[in-house]
Amino acid sequence: MKTPLRIGIAGLGTVGAGVVKLLAEHGRLLALRGGRPLKLVAVSARSRSKKRDIDLAGVRWEKDPLALATASDIDVVVELIGGSGGIARRLVQKSLTSGKHVVTANKALLALHGAEIAAQAEKKDRILAFEAAVAGGIPIIKALREGLVGNRVQRLYGILNGTCNYILTTMRETGRDFDVVLAEAQAAGYAEADPSFDVDGIDAAHKLAVLTGAAFGARVNFGGIHVEGIRRVTSMDIQFAEELGYRIKLLGLARETKYGIEQRVHPCMVPLATPIAHIEGVFNAVVIDGDFVGTTMFQGRGAGQGPTASAVVADLVDVARGRHMPAFVVPADRLADRPASPMDRHVGAYYMRLMVQDRPGVISAVSGALAKERISLESMLQRGRSESGEVPVVLTTHATEEAAMRRALAHIAKLKAVAEEPCLIRIEAF
Amino acid sequence: MKTPLRIGIAGLGTVGAGVVKLLAEHGRLLALRGGRPLKLVAVSARSRSKKRDIDLAGVRWEKDPLALATASDIDVVVELIGGSGGIARRLVQKSLTSGKHVVTANKALLALHGAEIAAQAEKKDRILAFEAAVAGGIPIIKALREGLVGNRVQRLYGILNGTCNYILTTMRETGRDFDVVLAEAQAAGYAEADPSFDVDGIDAAHKLAVLTGAAFGARVNFGGIHVEGIRRVTSMDIQFAEELGYRIKLLGLARETKYGIEQRVHPCMVPLATPIAHIEGVFNAVVIDGDFVGTTMFQGRGAGQGPTASAVVADLVDVARGRHMPAFVVPADRLADRPASPMDRHVGAYYMRLMVQDRPGVISAVSGALAKERISLESMLQRGRSESGEVPVVLTTHATEEAAMRRALAHIAKLKAVAEEPCLIRIEAF
Repeated sequence: MKTPLRIGIAGLGTVGAGVVKLLAEHGRLLALRGGRPLKLVAVSARSRSKKRDIDLAGVRWEKDPLALATASDIDVVVELIGGSGGIARRLVQKSLTSGKHVVTANKALLALHGAEIAAQAEKKDRILAFEAAVAGGIPIIKALREGLVGNRVQRLYGILNGTCNYILTTMRETGRDFDVVLAEAQAAGYAEADPSFDVDGIDAAHKLAVLTGAAFGARVNFGGIHVEGIRRVTSMDIQFAEELGYRIKLLGLARETKYGIEQRVHPCMVPLATPIAHIEGVFNAVVIDGDFVGTTMFQGRGAGQGPTASAVVADLVDVARGRHMPAFVVPADRLADRPASPMDRHVGAYYMRLMVQDRPGVISAVSGALAKERISLESMLQRGRSESGEVPVVLTTHATEEAAMRRALAHIAKLKAVAEEPCLIRIEAF
Repeated sequence: MKTPLRIGIAGLGTVGAGVVKLLAEHGRLLALRGGRPLKLVAVSARSRSKKRDIDLAGVRWEKDPLALATASDIDVVVELIGGSGGIARRLVQKSLTSGKHVVTANKALLALHGAEIAAQAEKKDRILAFEAAVAGGIPIIKALREGLVGNRVQRLYGILNGTCNYILTTMRETGRDFDVVLAEAQAAGYAEADPSFDVDGIDAAHKLAVLTGAAFGARVNFGGIHVEGIRRVTSMDIQFAEELGYRIKLLGLARETKYGIEQRVHPCMVPLATPIAHIEGVFNAVVIDGDFVGTTMFQGRGAGQGPTASAVVADLVDVARGRHMPAFVVPADRLADRPASPMDRHVGAYYMRLMVQDRPGVISAVSGALAKERISLESMLQRGRSESGEVPVVLTTHATEEAAMRRALAHIAKLKAVAEEPCLIRIEAF
């Protein structure tokens, strides 16, 4: 039997414990499939006494995770601490400069420092692998970097945050509002106590940044992403969406435009006839449009112990087999440094829902504001009277430039008869 | 720049021409992504004069494809001739024994001789890659061999033949019968003049055999597959399926049972609530259930020039980067040689549709035959009278063993009041 791949794991939360379990449970299988044994040599975590339900007999405990980076008996460091800076970043960088391979699930770190860390890995001819950073168990990084390597990616988009998708699915199924469903999700453990990372779209944006880098061979550019979360999506809008033949999903989308690379995370109306409309609950899905392969979609569980451990171990087997390639498909010094395509230049269709005083002239004023910006209406829906005197008016437009839509919206919001901030949701045509 | 990977292609049909186009169109991109240029050195095909719309300037033409196997200026032979024997098999084997890597889209060859050819590749330490053999552009072989390598696969199933899926989709959408839709598909070029390879399930079975080998690390066993095609699916059954909350799909399915590995290709009723029910037209999809990752699904175009070329080129980039592993995940001499789980031992639910004389006692006789085999009914549907006096009776059962169902069916078919061969379709619960 060949020499084992010697592994050090930093971070023994849900994912770290899952990796330890998987390595133990499938040890023989992995040795066969990886061509050599995968041997856990050392671990490090904040608390040694925490109950974890894993067997660490014979595994060295390192108090300082950074010790893994320089230990002479470790070939690959698995970073599962998380966070874009601090100890996680120091560990990854020190491991690479010390000549270790690195496997990480840290999307925040990659989103903010991906290109720099990729360059460090290449300088030392070491592997930087991060399948677990995006879409849990779905092998989407491998699909982008290898399986679809023959394609110029024309567009990618996906449901990248299970918490948001769970909330939107539940809002639709129950008719309840965002705050109520979020509180339930928190009680059930599907959402964090501080949910902003998920519901404000940051987590999805981290993942989108990493995907975009791998898909377009470009420097990861988290700062170039237009990000909106799901807090302002109401059950009323979800219901209107269904009536119009759409479903509301928080998507991350990226494509090349003549202005650069457009990356955006925001609630979208997607046609009910598209497969991604039917990805519900905690599932994730990523769609890749390639110039030769056409449209492909990959779906699965986007988080959780088993799926994420599956992704980490796939990376470890790649390391065991010495399957080497640049982190973002092309060498770090050849990564494209394209500007972020400005959101004002985005072209697409829009859904707008207003609450208006039900009196003569309102529709005329609203449609006049749109006409002034040369925005053409696709449909308009007005509902009967209400006791408060405010009624919803829903408009959908044909494709128009975001800047024009924003100008029209600002004008409309100031109309006396418009009772609250209008709700604007982009419609995606696939 | 590093030394190029020198490529010889045998077969310049749709796929071969697509590979030539892709290599030409994305030459610079591929050199960057593959770490070295991918250089087409020689080609061979039956007719040199055939119009192909590809540029072969500077590419050597070999009259005899076998010359590619021994040419000193070729590193990898791409076999796109097809067929399980004859020249394709000789070319693949001779290429490997001559020390070339081999990339092939030949599912028939792999289904019948996969383990043997894998052993030849390993003996010479060469790569045998076949992403294009299954599900066109979907990188499913890579997902199984690498992306999900940390999992014990519990079950896999998929829509593996685009022609059948197109026919079933069209039958459902138009209400037309199999023969009519097949003729239309032939006229439109979606089905071959001799359609038996597709509609009788052979093509799907070839692909299933290859998937099963890669998923379970087992010797490819085409002979162990239970195969039924779609010729006997009627639009009446498609309509009943919808009423019952199902959709009829030709699936290939594989799982381990206590008797061995169960592999089957046949029309299935799949619940409308499952994602695979919504894979329509020429699209393919494969679902993998892994013990850690849970359920994952991969979908895309299952055939055609662009998608298949995308898969071939992905394999070529793996070869260029020297990404090496056993063809069926574990070394050829360690492939499991498990028996085929007999179809009689299959356990599942069934849909049965009879045409019966509308007279007293028929239902009693039918249900008596089922009761005798201890098969319990889940639902029964009987439709009003017809002029011919024959009416459809539809029954669905709870899970039962296939052998019992077969015995009951034989008994029922012999009843005087049963007018034609009963239609039996397995119901799959996912």
